[in-house]
Amino acid sequence: MSKYWSKKLRGLSPYVPGEQPRDMKYIKLNTNENPYPPSPAVLERISSSGERLNLYPDFSAMKLRNTIADYYGLKPENIFAGNGSDEILAFCFRAFFDSSPAPEPTPEPEKIIFPEVTYSFYPSYAKLFDINYNTFDLNSDFTVNIQEFAKKNGGIVLANPNAPTGIALNVSEIKQILDMNPEKVVVIDEAYVDFGGESAIPLIDTYSNLVVIQTFSKSRSLASMRVGFAIGNAELIRGLEIVRDSFNSYTVNCISMNAAIEAINDKAYFETVRNRIIKTRERVKVAFTDMGFHVTNSKANFIFVGHPEKSGEELFLRLREKGILVRHFNKKEIANYLRITIGTDKDMDAVIAAVKYILY
Amino acid sequence: MSKYWSKKLRGLSPYVPGEQPRDMKYIKLNTNENPYPPSPAVLERISSSGERLNLYPDFSAMKLRNTIADYYGLKPENIFAGNGSDEILAFCFRAFFDSSPAPEPTPEPEKIIFPEVTYSFYPSYAKLFDINYNTFDLNSDFTVNIQEFAKKNGGIVLANPNAPTGIALNVSEIKQILDMNPEKVVVIDEAYVDFGGESAIPLIDTYSNLVVIQTFSKSRSLASMRVGFAIGNAELIRGLEIVRDSFNSYTVNCISMNAAIEAINDKAYFETVRNRIIKTRERVKVAFTDMGFHVTNSKANFIFVGHPEKSGEELFLRLREKGILVRHFNKKEIANYLRITIGTDKDMDAVIAAVKYILY
Repeated sequence: MSKYWSKKLRGLSPYVPGEQPRDMKYIKLNTNENPYPPSPAVLERISSSGERLNLYPDFSAMKLRNTIADYYGLKPENIFAGNGSDEILAFCFRAFFDSSPAPEPTPEPEKIIFPEVTYSFYPSYAKLFDINYNTFDLNSDFTVNIQEFAKKNGGIVLANPNAPTGIALNVSEIKQILDMNPEKVVVIDEAYVDFGGESAIPLIDTYSNLVVIQTFSKSRSLASMRVGFAIGNAELIRGLEIVRDSFNSYTVNCISMNAAIEAINDKAYFETVRNRIIKTRERVKVAFTDMGFHVTNSKANFIFVGHPEKSGEELFLRLREKGILVRHFNKKEIANYLRITIGTDKDMDAVIAAVKYILY
Repeated sequence: MSKYWSKKLRGLSPYVPGEQPRDMKYIKLNTNENPYPPSPAVLERISSSGERLNLYPDFSAMKLRNTIADYYGLKPENIFAGNGSDEILAFCFRAFFDSSPAPEPTPEPEKIIFPEVTYSFYPSYAKLFDINYNTFDLNSDFTVNIQEFAKKNGGIVLANPNAPTGIALNVSEIKQILDMNPEKVVVIDEAYVDFGGESAIPLIDTYSNLVVIQTFSKSRSLASMRVGFAIGNAELIRGLEIVRDSFNSYTVNCISMNAAIEAINDKAYFETVRNRIIKTRERVKVAFTDMGFHVTNSKANFIFVGHPEKSGEELFLRLREKGILVRHFNKKEIANYLRITIGTDKDMDAVIAAVKYILY
C-alpha cells in the first residue's frame, strides 16, 4: 500500500486468475483453455499478416462484427467486440448498472444480483464501479434457483453454464428470468456455452434488456489473442461503445481481429474440436463417478468433482506434486470440489491415473 | 439513449478518435501514426509465431517487462504493460486520483489538474471515474506555465510533448512540477517523447510520485498491435496491477507482447526511423513557416500550424477534398490550427503542394 493510492484502489478486490506457469512442465488443466490449437486458417492468417501494422486498427471492428453478425443472422449493430470477454463484462457493469452512493436527489439504486458461487470476477467489477450487489446460495445440488431473480434487483449477471459448476440453465429458464425483469438489464455470460449449453442469442430480438457475452478463448482456442464479443439490442451495444470510448478507443488489435474472423469462418474445425472435447468430458465424467466422486452435469469444457473422503485441497496439492494443475477454490460452499479443465484424452488419462493412485 | 443505460453512462463524454477510413484513398496524416512499418524483426517474429495460441498469455507480461527494464536500466517491478497507453492512462486515473463525491466522513478530494488544451481523452477518463478536474489556459504561445501546477490539486496529468501543440517541457521543468507536488501523483504522458523530447524516466528513482507512460504506437510503428507501458515506483506499478485485475486480467495478447519485445530490441531500426521523421518534420516546419504559417516548436511526430488568413476549418476541408486527412479541433483556443502528422517525405511534399495551391 502506498500513500499515493486512491481511496478507491485501497478498497478493490482484484480477481485472481489460475496460475500460468511458463515452463510447460505441468499438465495444465486449471484455466479452462482449449487443449487443441486454433483452426489452421487462423494460423495461416496470422503468419501471412499483410496488415499495415503502423496504422491503428479499425476501432469499430466492422469486419469482425459483420462476420459474427452473419454467423448468427444478426446485424453488426447488435455486436460489440472487446479485448476478451472480461473487458466486455467490465464495460457492462459500467454501462448498465447504477453506482452507489447515488447522486442526490436520486434514490439509492437497487443492488444487482448474482449467485454466490459463480465466476469470481463479478464482485471485482462491482467494487471497481461502486455497484452494490446481493448474492444468493445455489441449491444443494449446485443448480441455480431462478426464483431468486424474481426479487427486487438493479440488474442481473449470470454465467450460463455457471462457473465453476458447469451446470446450465436452458433457454426457457433464461426467458423466465427476462420476463421477471423487464426493466433491468440481464447479462448472460456464455463463455462456456459452445460445449453443450443453450445460447440465449435467439432471444435478442424479443428482449431489449438482454446482453449475451461470448469469448474466443475457449471453444475457438484463442485465449492468447484476447477477443470476446457481446450480442444485444443496438441501444445496449451503443452504450458499450460509449463506455469503451471513455476508456480506450482501440481495444482489439488488428491481428486478433483477423484471427477471430478466421476462427468464426472455419465452422467445420470448430465443430470437430468442440465435439471432441464434449466426448472426452463425458468419458471423464464416467471415470470420476466410478471413482466415487460427485460429478456435476457440466456442459462446459471442465468437470466439477468432489470426493466424499478426500478433501478438495488435498487432492489439488497431491495432483500438483504429480505435475497436474487443476483449480481449487477456497470458498466454503465448494471447498471440497475441484474444477478440472478437459484437456486431450492423454491429459485426462493422466489425471484419472493420478487420482486413482492418490485414492487407492 | 436507452432506459437501460446506467445514470453514469448518460453522463459520459467519450473521446472521439480521428477518422480511420479503410479504403486507403487518403494520405492519412490525422492520427499521428508512423508512416514506416515496424522493424523487420517484428514482422519476422509475428509471422513465425510458435506460441501456443490456445493458452492465455502471461498476464504478468514478464518477458516484455524485463526487456523494457533492461532497455532503461530499471527493474521489472518498475514496469507495467498495457493494451495501449490509453488503457494505462485510464488505470492511472482510477489508481491514483480520488473520486467525488467522497465517502463520508472523508472530505471532498482536491481536483486534479491539466491544461485546457491537451490530449482530449483526459476529461473522458475523469468523467468515467467521477474525478473532478480543473484546467488552465496555455500561454498565448501555447507553452505550459508550470506555475499552474503550484496550485492546490489532487494530482497532475501532463502530456509531454503536449498534444496537439507538440511543445515540450524539459526535464528540469518536470522536476520543478514534482518538487511542488510531493504528496500527489504526477502522470507524464510521453506518447511523443521519442521524436525529440526529454524523458522523465531518469527521475523515477528520485520521485516516488512519478508515473511515466509511453507507447509502441508512434515511434515504434505498432499502432495496430496496441501496446503501451508505464514506468514508476514499484508501489505505483502494483496499484496499476490491482486496477487491471479488477477489470481484465489479461490485457496484452501474446503476439503483441512478442512484437513489442522485438521492437525494443531493434535499437538501430528505431533510431533510423525516428531520425528520419525528425528530419522530415524540421524540413516541413520551414516550408510552412515560409508559407506564412505560425508553426510551433513541435518535438512530436506532427506539426501544429495556423495561418493568419485562412481558417483552420477551411484548410482542413479543402485538404480533405484533395485527398489529404489532417486533424482539426473544434476548440476555440486552437480552432485556427491544424495538427498534421509527419508522414513520408512524399506525403509531406503532397501536403505542402496542396496547401500552396489552396493559399495562392
